[in-house]
Amino acid sequence: MKDQLNISNWTCPLPLQNYPTIVMGHGSGGKMMSDLIHHMFLPLLGNEALNQLGDAAVLELDQYPTRVAFSTDSFVVNPLIFPGGNIGELAVYGTVNDLAMTGAQPLFLSAGFILEEGLPMETLGEITTAFSAACQTANVLVVTGDTKVVNKGHGDGLYINTTGIGLIPAEVAIAPENAQAGDVVIVSGTVGDHGMAIMSVREGLEFETRIVSDTSPLHELVETMLAASLDIHCLRDATRGGVAAALNELAKSSQLGITFEEAKIPLRPAVKAACEMLGMDPLYVANEGKLVAIVKSQVAEEVLAAMHSHPLGRDAVLIGQVVSDHPGMVLAKTGIGGSRVVALPVGELLPRIC
Amino acid sequence: MKDQLNISNWTCPLPLQNYPTIVMGHGSGGKMMSDLIHHMFLPLLGNEALNQLGDAAVLELDQYPTRVAFSTDSFVVNPLIFPGGNIGELAVYGTVNDLAMTGAQPLFLSAGFILEEGLPMETLGEITTAFSAACQTANVLVVTGDTKVVNKGHGDGLYINTTGIGLIPAEVAIAPENAQAGDVVIVSGTVGDHGMAIMSVREGLEFETRIVSDTSPLHELVETMLAASLDIHCLRDATRGGVAAALNELAKSSQLGITFEEAKIPLRPAVKAACEMLGMDPLYVANEGKLVAIVKSQVAEEVLAAMHSHPLGRDAVLIGQVVSDHPGMVLAKTGIGGSRVVALPVGELLPRIC
Repeated sequence: MKDQLNISNWTCPLPLQNYPTIVMGHGSGGKMMSDLIHHMFLPLLGNEALNQLGDAAVLELDQYPTRVAFSTDSFVVNPLIFPGGNIGELAVYGTVNDLAMTGAQPLFLSAGFILEEGLPMETLGEITTAFSAACQTANVLVVTGDTKVVNKGHGDGLYINTTGIGLIPAEVAIAPENAQAGDVVIVSGTVGDHGMAIMSVREGLEFETRIVSDTSPLHELVETMLAASLDIHCLRDATRGGVAAALNELAKSSQLGITFEEAKIPLRPAVKAACEMLGMDPLYVANEGKLVAIVKSQVAEEVLAAMHSHPLGRDAVLIGQVVSDHPGMVLAKTGIGGSRVVALPVGELLPRIC
Repeated sequence: MKDQLNISNWTCPLPLQNYPTIVMGHGSGGKMMSDLIHHMFLPLLGNEALNQLGDAAVLELDQYPTRVAFSTDSFVVNPLIFPGGNIGELAVYGTVNDLAMTGAQPLFLSAGFILEEGLPMETLGEITTAFSAACQTANVLVVTGDTKVVNKGHGDGLYINTTGIGLIPAEVAIAPENAQAGDVVIVSGTVGDHGMAIMSVREGLEFETRIVSDTSPLHELVETMLAASLDIHCLRDATRGGVAAALNELAKSSQLGITFEEAKIPLRPAVKAACEMLGMDPLYVANEGKLVAIVKSQVAEEVLAAMHSHPLGRDAVLIGQVVSDHPGMVLAKTGIGGSRVVALPVGELLPRIC
């Protein structure tokens, strides 16, 4: 292909040329990753479905009664086993949640395991057992798989790709660009638990209360919300880049602004303390069992009540509004009456989080 | 999960306990990989669709007029760029071919890129350009993707997972277990080209004629075959483990025997010479644009004629028969009038081939 390569087709002079090689920040869920996607992947591979950049693609097939949700995720979390879970259940719930963010009922998963030579068979057994249990919890079937082995020193024990298929009920109309001015913004629970759990193991930190990952499947919570009202306009899984990235992506897709009250963000005391100690902003820390919802204001109460009735939405709270001012921008109202721009993170806050 | 782990559930005393850790052979497409799948993955994750172990899962969805084919493949080929192609087009055609082996029309792909820190942006551009061109050739759309970055020294430049969706026409009835005694066995062209192309670069070998990979999309060839006759019972992509593994898997799934004439296997002179020099059996060498078909004998001529009309089936040849003797076993008739068992390869012939 070398002689067919036309660099001008795929790279914009800026900003990719600032980085002649891939750096960790390109996998951050922040601005550098967004640049890589917008300046290399979309120009070469883009189409109507991909360009939406939703958590999952929404496909309409000829003659098919319902839309199909289709989503992929590779998991490279380090360490493989962490407080509250391991890469096995993370790989199941991560893709289940991406499907759920379209309102789909997750049905089928594929599993691609890239094993590193030397991985203890017992570790693989423990992770596959957790993977299996997570499939049962989320009520999905693994119907196709692939196994590859790479040489020692060319992997990190185990990388897992899961790709999922779900069906979207006809009456559901959730999409990243569906927010409307006047809508309200809801967060489903405490933020930052997964990221700080990983961080605590990786850095060998001990806190008074053990921080555990929140990794959980969100599709039932979404079902409960949709049963309360169909006026749910956007859903976003707050994983890499945290709530800050989720809100920025929704503001950008809808070309509207978002304002929220920082003090309303639910935060476990241990996570708050750990973030303060490490100088991290919990808004940017990854979650694996939390969502951000943008909902018509008239149905906010019903939706919140429905969320509170579900264990994974018990701490759900209305944090802000969608506004027509400052399109594409997210503003946090701070405790002292001011406000600050919550931008997309630029580079890498915490690599290898999922 | 540690305290819930019950090793007796997932590992059979033999043969996994012979290997306390993952070794390269577990990714070979041979007996060791089959053991890993049968003794760990299937007991934990198995279900009707997964247990078929086809190139792709075949899913029947309520109210859907056609069956859905769903297949996943991770690509870890080394080197990333090789004579005749690179990991980009390999990743597209690999999954397109797995879908095509069910008779499906491939439609949508997901792309999961695991990038290693330090990968030159230009290499990523070249590979993504090839990936894009291959999608156009195969007429598939990438509709969802994921990008992860791992630290330098924890990857190998780039691993790609592609997972695909296709639709299977109602009248097609291809499945690994559908072979019948009396059916004939066809190979679509010369074998071993991909594996020997990779080998030649990796080992720095030079032959009189340059060996190039045969990486190509096979769905049109399959369409052409199905237009000639619907009595195509089994199709198998002869990738890892080569034609030997494909025939063994089909014999095992159908619980019938297969015999073929070794001298009829099409082989490029350069590949033959290289295999002889390296002491390798071309039957076990990987292909990326060749299929094995099991076809009702009455339609063999029509199917072969159709294959010969397509550039990717020009060298197709009838090599043998399905027999009710020696179920699950593959026998090659050798040039000197004898015969030998062609078993599933045990371990690793050539790692990191796809």
